[in-house]
Amino acid sequence: MTAYEIILKKRDGGELSRAEIEFMVRGFLNDAVTDYQMSAFLMAVFFVGMSAGETDELTTVMLESGSVLDFSAVPGAKIDKHSTGGVGDKLSLVVAPIAAAAGVRVPMISGRGLGHTGGTLDKLESIPGFRTDLSRSEFERVVVDTGMAIVGQSPDVAPADRRMYALRDVTATIECVPLIVSSILSKKLAAGLDGLVLDVKVGRGGFMQDIESARALAERLLETSHRLGLPADALLTDMESPLGRAVGNAVEVAEAVDVLSGRGPSDVRETSLALSSRMILLAGLAPGAEEASAHAAEALDGGAALERFARFVEAQGGDSSFITRPELLPGASIVREVTSDGAGFVSRVDAMEVGLASTELGAGRKEVGDAIDPAVGIEIVTAVGEKVEAGGVLALVRGNDADRAELAVGRVRGAFDIAQERPSARPRVLGLIESPGR
Amino acid sequence: MTAYEIILKKRDGGELSRAEIEFMVRGFLNDAVTDYQMSAFLMAVFFVGMSAGETDELTTVMLESGSVLDFSAVPGAKIDKHSTGGVGDKLSLVVAPIAAAAGVRVPMISGRGLGHTGGTLDKLESIPGFRTDLSRSEFERVVVDTGMAIVGQSPDVAPADRRMYALRDVTATIECVPLIVSSILSKKLAAGLDGLVLDVKVGRGGFMQDIESARALAERLLETSHRLGLPADALLTDMESPLGRAVGNAVEVAEAVDVLSGRGPSDVRETSLALSSRMILLAGLAPGAEEASAHAAEALDGGAALERFARFVEAQGGDSSFITRPELLPGASIVREVTSDGAGFVSRVDAMEVGLASTELGAGRKEVGDAIDPAVGIEIVTAVGEKVEAGGVLALVRGNDADRAELAVGRVRGAFDIAQERPSARPRVLGLIESPGR
Repeated sequence: MTAYEIILKKRDGGELSRAEIEFMVRGFLNDAVTDYQMSAFLMAVFFVGMSAGETDELTTVMLESGSVLDFSAVPGAKIDKHSTGGVGDKLSLVVAPIAAAAGVRVPMISGRGLGHTGGTLDKLESIPGFRTDLSRSEFERVVVDTGMAIVGQSPDVAPADRRMYALRDVTATIECVPLIVSSILSKKLAAGLDGLVLDVKVGRGGFMQDIESARALAERLLETSHRLGLPADALLTDMESPLGRAVGNAVEVAEAVDVLSGRGPSDVRETSLALSSRMILLAGLAPGAEEASAHAAEALDGGAALERFARFVEAQGGDSSFITRPELLPGASIVREVTSDGAGFVSRVDAMEVGLASTELGAGRKEVGDAIDPAVGIEIVTAVGEKVEAGGVLALVRGNDADRAELAVGRVRGAFDIAQERPSARPRVLGLIESPGR
Repeated sequence: MTAYEIILKKRDGGELSRAEIEFMVRGFLNDAVTDYQMSAFLMAVFFVGMSAGETDELTTVMLESGSVLDFSAVPGAKIDKHSTGGVGDKLSLVVAPIAAAAGVRVPMISGRGLGHTGGTLDKLESIPGFRTDLSRSEFERVVVDTGMAIVGQSPDVAPADRRMYALRDVTATIECVPLIVSSILSKKLAAGLDGLVLDVKVGRGGFMQDIESARALAERLLETSHRLGLPADALLTDMESPLGRAVGNAVEVAEAVDVLSGRGPSDVRETSLALSSRMILLAGLAPGAEEASAHAAEALDGGAALERFARFVEAQGGDSSFITRPELLPGASIVREVTSDGAGFVSRVDAMEVGLASTELGAGRKEVGDAIDPAVGIEIVTAVGEKVEAGGVLALVRGNDADRAELAVGRVRGAFDIAQERPSARPRVLGLIESPGR
């Protein structure tokens, strides 16, 4: 068996065996397969695809390249939520406390922002004192004590994914369903979960541009997850425009607190309830979807979720007093208005452009390893469907550098379309796909 | 402009500009584009292809990565022949002397054997004293003095092709028309030619497995060659079974001398005449195809081609006395018979298997840099269409190592099919494609 033969077989449409997939992935990790052979292989997979069976095997081989967490000592059902990444997506900060308050154990492993998308770890780190680098035993203890914890990926989990992802990132092979599935699930299967809720974003700021590709990705994710023993549901959610009104880090934490306090944008509230109720259902804490929704709404509206959030912040070393005093979060020194030339209704806010403007300001990373500024960000003042007068404010740009703020203002202005008629309302939750095991 | 963007554009079916192709190829040569990005790019080209315009640009950029020979001081039309590689293909040793004897200048740049295919340089080096590593001035002098010379590729010609080919060879991106075209033509355009005859092999032992793909490759080669100013014709020739009866190095030189002496297998004779008459026509030395064929036949049958071959051997340092005394060529110590189990007609001799058996014996290379044994090889005793009795000899294996000879005997036996009815005769020359400029 040689890397050449395996590339050739995949290139010509063949179905690879477990042994062949193992040869490529393990060989790549121990340098027996070169990076240029792996990148040719990944591009061949991009074009030819992989069968469901091959995707399962690839996921398993990547999972087995690293260590697996064991949460069996933690009582209760352990359920995580995973999003394919978006703009203004502070859902984890709302969803996890709701689910935890309803009795779910949420050992959440999150990522950092890259390109136009933000990352939950970056957002949390804008809270003074907050730590995302918990040890395994700290992670477990926080989950047991508060019902939830949010930490970064341990480097010994699925190392094959880390190396393959880095290569895909520079060779244009990210957008490939079997590679996405194996990347996401190898890490989630290593987290010792009892269930997983997937949030697959659709639209300009999301990973998938149209509902059909998003559905195809979600279905493959659920199939592989099911066959490898992890029950999972998926929601398809709209990412044409940024979620909520805040895009950045501290500004998104503040918005999450607003939602947990019964205020804040309704799209963040509704999507959070939809995701957390699926977690409650997967955990077996409700007999059906309706009861799960009721539990989630009760946890949010009764204040238990906010209280849970405060305990979680303190448990991970943060100072929770910002919850009642948002001015304790980092603030930007410059505020610029983005105004509308004409009057009408906002018909579109391009999430990709707003995400890139936010990165431009310093809230995100152009490359892995870039430093981020927790204070800066963008606030949508007039959202899709809302009315604006000529000269009226569409958005606020909060920055710490005048030149970067000016660039961001231009970019954000370009993200808005104004129409004469009010656009029809768009739901955020576009679809639900349930585990094939149900 | 980044390598990532260019890979993405090609992956998604875009047409690359000259500047983008230049960025990739030059960047690769100066290490600004990594080998893993280049291999992902090449695999994307394998799947998406390249337009005629892109192929022209790639060829030009690769040509301009190195130096270009100038034969303008050599009087007469300079015409080379290029084969896509085969088994038992000693045509260059016959074609070049015929063309030279008819007045064509043949500055031939040849290659070495790899895998199942042999190489003209290896065959020539089985002649005692023969040198293929002439300096530029020696090369030019031999062409002027004898009308022909056969040398290896200078390392300063198309260095981009050498590096890209090495990468393609280990990442399964060899079989891709625009990459083949740019690889062949960048080197041929650098040779300062006035015309080129291409021999595109079709079948089990050839580069292309079916006539349609061979025709598509030939047409693209001629189009690009024409647009870049090099008139070229192509013959499609059959490579299902080995050409002639000898496969190896010294054994093929001996067979070429047989054909130049008016003996030898008729398929080698006919194909040599077809190729050399195209060279004569391209050189403007005949008003039409019929006259060119007559010139070629006259050069061969009148003995001028053999005389020219002897002068060429001497001019490149070889001792030409082997022409009348073939025992002066290296001989193998072991001869094994490959016999037929049943009686009937040979219906098929698999050129790929015979080529691999020859490599197994030591006549070819498994990897670049392997040493070869000039003495060993295979002789087809009963060729396609010929009758054999049970126990009759199908082939002789000539080796210098008993174990390797035994392995080769098994492989060669497997290459033969015996049928009860005589198969219909197959022509070697399957088609002619003329330069679009004609």
